[in-house]
Amino acid sequence: MYIPTYNDMLEAHDRIAPHIRRTPVRTSDYLNEVAGCQLFFKCENFQEPGAFKVRGAANAVFGLNQRQAAKGVATHSSGNHASCLSYAAMLRGIPCNVVMPRTAPQAKKDTVRRYGGKITECEPSTSSREATFAGVQAATGGDFVHPYNDPRVIAGQGTCSKEFMEQADGLDMVVAPIGGGGMISGTCLTLATLAPETKVIAAEPEQADDAYRSFKAGYIIADDAPQTIADGLLVPLKDLTWHFVSRHVSEIYTASEQEIVDAMKLIWKHLRAVMEPSSAVPLATILKNPDAFRGKRVGVIITGGNVDLDKLPWVLG
Amino acid sequence: MYIPTYNDMLEAHDRIAPHIRRTPVRTSDYLNEVAGCQLFFKCENFQEPGAFKVRGAANAVFGLNQRQAAKGVATHSSGNHASCLSYAAMLRGIPCNVVMPRTAPQAKKDTVRRYGGKITECEPSTSSREATFAGVQAATGGDFVHPYNDPRVIAGQGTCSKEFMEQADGLDMVVAPIGGGGMISGTCLTLATLAPETKVIAAEPEQADDAYRSFKAGYIIADDAPQTIADGLLVPLKDLTWHFVSRHVSEIYTASEQEIVDAMKLIWKHLRAVMEPSSAVPLATILKNPDAFRGKRVGVIITGGNVDLDKLPWVLG
Repeated sequence: MYIPTYNDMLEAHDRIAPHIRRTPVRTSDYLNEVAGCQLFFKCENFQEPGAFKVRGAANAVFGLNQRQAAKGVATHSSGNHASCLSYAAMLRGIPCNVVMPRTAPQAKKDTVRRYGGKITECEPSTSSREATFAGVQAATGGDFVHPYNDPRVIAGQGTCSKEFMEQADGLDMVVAPIGGGGMISGTCLTLATLAPETKVIAAEPEQADDAYRSFKAGYIIADDAPQTIADGLLVPLKDLTWHFVSRHVSEIYTASEQEIVDAMKLIWKHLRAVMEPSSAVPLATILKNPDAFRGKRVGVIITGGNVDLDKLPWVLG
Repeated sequence: MYIPTYNDMLEAHDRIAPHIRRTPVRTSDYLNEVAGCQLFFKCENFQEPGAFKVRGAANAVFGLNQRQAAKGVATHSSGNHASCLSYAAMLRGIPCNVVMPRTAPQAKKDTVRRYGGKITECEPSTSSREATFAGVQAATGGDFVHPYNDPRVIAGQGTCSKEFMEQADGLDMVVAPIGGGGMISGTCLTLATLAPETKVIAAEPEQADDAYRSFKAGYIIADDAPQTIADGLLVPLKDLTWHFVSRHVSEIYTASEQEIVDAMKLIWKHLRAVMEPSSAVPLATILKNPDAFRGKRVGVIITGGNVDLDKLPWVLG
């Protein structure tokens, strides 16, 4: 298992900077007042494909040598990684093959196809996905880019915190949502060297709290089919992300479904940013644990903005 | 009638810069592709009180001498001007009196009160509003800050385009919505000197097209009780804004209600910015008149982001 280094992150940033956006950091006096601390929001939902995952994906895609690039990349995902990898491959002009369950939302499939990704559908089961993916990879020779358990991906995600520290001028802590742990691992990787006094805090839905329970137990525990509105956070930790989470994360807080929806609406209303339920989990945990954040300078990573505008969680129907 | 000058705008910017946000300019490759031109969105919806009107309001408030400041400011408005003037007055710590129809939405009243504005309710008629406002002004001595027909307000709104030109590095045209004409007038004021080759284009709802008809006729025509989802654009031009509109605007385009809603949803989805229906009118007109914009560098001012998240126009109910 290769553990990505701070230098890998620096190289990643040089590699991807022409292909991603240096997203703005935004503030809201009103949210500061509500939270009792100074909040700085790094808006990764403003990346062109709408999620921080374009960083890791672009690092993997643009790091391929010419021979591998000709065969392209491949992954299995029904979320932002699939569209971000397709987007990065489109920018380089190489093939991207994605295995998705046939039950994935049509909007997600449309986005992958808009970026030129080729979708092979599988049944919504682990065995079908693995068999289908093995077939696709054998046929295409595409380089497998895992959504998070890949050193290139983690080094790419770490570039977000490098920009964040340049933009925000000193933070006591950075809070990011945790699913598989790619963004949190990249954040740990960067801050451990660049700002070791800045704490890394992970935020997780109560109804998918495998990282929280793993963190407390000291070993990886996977949830059995978790269900949460924060659908970007359903996947479990893997060995590489566990490495960073177990060593560098200061705390993991959790929030209920209603707390997540309330925080999401607050951000939409006062930061006027369209973002996913997953991205609201940090603010939900901050509002739930005011003593841990009071008076601090708190960075929050808004991880993604791809949400179905016809099915907002606070609208009945 | 005092016509504000370019120098007034420069002084306004020095005066208000500590109190407003230098809002980001954002782009979307996808929207560029759809529109067939290069779009640059100046996100005034990201001002703390959610609208460009904080610029003019802050210029009026912070320009008062001490004696007048002690008596505060006063206005009649049920929209963003009321909350932005209250916000600016709060920052300076002076009174703000607002006359609002008792039928105004509760959310608008709540926002004004949150910023310390004092509301006096009137009946929803012009005569009641004028009589009530005269009484409030006589009692308080507050300086009347008109929502748009005021040289201090127009000079303040002009600061938006100054920042825009610094940020966007050359624009062929700037498109902004037109209601009373405050933002368009400020844009004309600034660009006529700073970038005379950049055209100013106004965008208006078909169902409240008084500025369009005035522009074609050559004199001010007011609508009789217009109705449009773009509720920030219901008010008519006045002498001061007509001065700028009649002299400096290149074209006024209009869009239907459905075109406005469609453009609003596109911006929410691809720019991931929460903005009002009024702010979508420019994109709606750009998509409707592709030949006028093809291949150009087009600046769009996203004027405001205060929208009722429980009543989105594309959600039935």
